[in-house]
Amino acid sequence: MTVRQLSLPELAAVCVRLGVRGVGLWREPVRAHGVRATAALMESAGLTVTSLCRGGFFTAADQRGRDRALGDNRAAVDEAAALGTDTLVLVSGGLPEGSRDLVGAREQVAEALAVLAPYAAERGVRLAIEPLHPMYAADRCVISTLHQALELACRFPPSWVGVVVDTYHVWWDEWAPQTVASAGEQGRIHSFQLADWTTPLPAGVLTGRGQLGDGSIELRRWRERVEAAGYRGPMEVELFNEVLWSRDGAEVVAETLRRFHEHVG
Amino acid sequence: MTVRQLSLPELAAVCVRLGVRGVGLWREPVRAHGVRATAALMESAGLTVTSLCRGGFFTAADQRGRDRALGDNRAAVDEAAALGTDTLVLVSGGLPEGSRDLVGAREQVAEALAVLAPYAAERGVRLAIEPLHPMYAADRCVISTLHQALELACRFPPSWVGVVVDTYHVWWDEWAPQTVASAGEQGRIHSFQLADWTTPLPAGVLTGRGQLGDGSIELRRWRERVEAAGYRGPMEVELFNEVLWSRDGAEVVAETLRRFHEHVG
Repeated sequence: MTVRQLSLPELAAVCVRLGVRGVGLWREPVRAHGVRATAALMESAGLTVTSLCRGGFFTAADQRGRDRALGDNRAAVDEAAALGTDTLVLVSGGLPEGSRDLVGAREQVAEALAVLAPYAAERGVRLAIEPLHPMYAADRCVISTLHQALELACRFPPSWVGVVVDTYHVWWDEWAPQTVASAGEQGRIHSFQLADWTTPLPAGVLTGRGQLGDGSIELRRWRERVEAAGYRGPMEVELFNEVLWSRDGAEVVAETLRRFHEHVG
Repeated sequence: MTVRQLSLPELAAVCVRLGVRGVGLWREPVRAHGVRATAALMESAGLTVTSLCRGGFFTAADQRGRDRALGDNRAAVDEAAALGTDTLVLVSGGLPEGSRDLVGAREQVAEALAVLAPYAAERGVRLAIEPLHPMYAADRCVISTLHQALELACRFPPSWVGVVVDTYHVWWDEWAPQTVASAGEQGRIHSFQLADWTTPLPAGVLTGRGQLGDGSIELRRWRERVEAAGYRGPMEVELFNEVLWSRDGAEVVAETLRRFHEHVG
């Protein structure tokens, strides 16, 4: 998604050229290209699919809406399995239309996980709950802290359900470092994602994630934290940024790699 | 600030006409009108000044910047005392220019409070630390949760330093309800402010606070929480909202009162 201006074949070619060995993919471009075709493309390029983004959006005003969400999530699990990735990232969803009941919405997420987790486990796919920054609590993700995500994950075996540590979403949280340590101890850090925090935020606050090094986050410190917690998996850079999207995609990948080595690696 | 389109005399007249008995004021319009003149205006209208917004912005890259901030905060205390309000609201300030050290910035806030709190107490002014929503952590307020604010306040007597509970900033936080209870038990809820959470957020995320009832927050529930915690002080409605600012100020006050009775009172 950092370079959504690239087609999947272009993305694969750029990664190979620059020595990137894995990519996190999003469902929309994968489905547009075809799930099997994407799997074949990545395999022939020697690229690991590090995760599939994203399932979730479990919350709904009625049972029918929740059932529809579960159906879509089963499809996402199937897609992840077909792509050969072991990790499906989940964004929980916000408050149901017209609701102000945060606690109830969080309970809906727990109920959906109870159905989805065994389905995913049977197919070799781990669910990774991603807490989103509290500014998304109403309309996108009622799971706002790493602690909440870990509490949800703890209802299941670690190989079934874990958490995503995304610096953009958790950097401000004084308790996140110790939650990272607990999550690591339990083997529940299923994904580590990087983006920097830059201000001012754009309208809608979706497309303002900063290039690594441009913002306020101690990115290397966060890498050290997840590694100290035992994390040895891939590191994904996930930037939603209008300026980066408007530029040459290959250049953006090259720049991101340089920034990664400078500020993280 | 909800009706910044009104002059202070207009504001006082509207409040009297609508039966509002107190107003929270901001420093800029007070200084423009004159501190003594404002005090006289509010007194002759029979209005209580419920709080003065705001001191704070303690964080700075060097000692000179921090000293300047302290000087400005002493002036804010003096203004609060002159207005006859017992409460000065503090917004801590963000990361110093070029810094990524959140922990260090928070320590700067604690150091500033240690100097300012006795100065304020001598003048009969309580400091009220306002945690701001985590989306302001980098550029405006490194104190992001009620828990952090209360931990800072706890270093001082309750009559010196307490917290602001503002629904807009804390509604998403699963721990805020129990922190409200603790703060109340300690006599440290020094201010209760209301605004609703509406999306999408505007660019810069400063001027999108929703009119009461337009958003996602269980406002009455929060009122019940602070009251159950023993709070008996004023309730301030603080909306920064471009649409409300563009309308007739008296109409906005009247609408806000109706919304207050419908959704809070």
